[in-house]
Amino acid sequence: MLKSEIYITLKKKIVDPQGLTIKHALESMGYKGLDEVRIGKFITIKIDCQNKEKAKKKIDNMCRKLLANPITEDYNVKMKGDK
Amino acid sequence: MLKSEIYITLKKKIVDPQGLTIKHALESMGYKGLDEVRIGKFITIKIDCQNKEKAKKKIDNMCRKLLANPITEDYNVKMKGDK
Repeated sequence: MLKSEIYITLKKKIVDPQGLTIKHALESMGYKGLDEVRIGKFITIKIDCQNKEKAKKKIDNMCRKLLANPITEDYNVKMKGDK
Repeated sequence: MLKSEIYITLKKKIVDPQGLTIKHALESMGYKGLDEVRIGKFITIKIDCQNKEKAKKKIDNMCRKLLANPITEDYNVKMKGDK
């Protein structure tokens, strides 16, 4: 069993209204010095596969086809040790 | 300027319907061997603060007060190098 972590973030040039709202909320709570808040997705997938390389390719494929929107989002896949 | 990454995940005992839906979608696309898919949030915050320890405490505080729901979610804060 391999565990993978996928980080999906909005591309840098794309405005993140959810992040802006949270930034304003934090500021109204008294937090100062905030420069940027951006919200993304964090997906963990456990997959039954012996080969780390193969599993990574498979998950990369899932990201392109379903998990991330390649037009507006960037993604990053990290494979963890066996679990 | 310090950059921090926050990973927010549902607690292990809590069912993740969004993750289950995505798991089913992936299976219907032909992906096999999936054991578990769980969806969380990935937040990046850039903060104007000289002291890494202080910044981490501040962000920990933000998590408890606004970003994460301590009843249903776990969170993890990582500070990145200067940027």
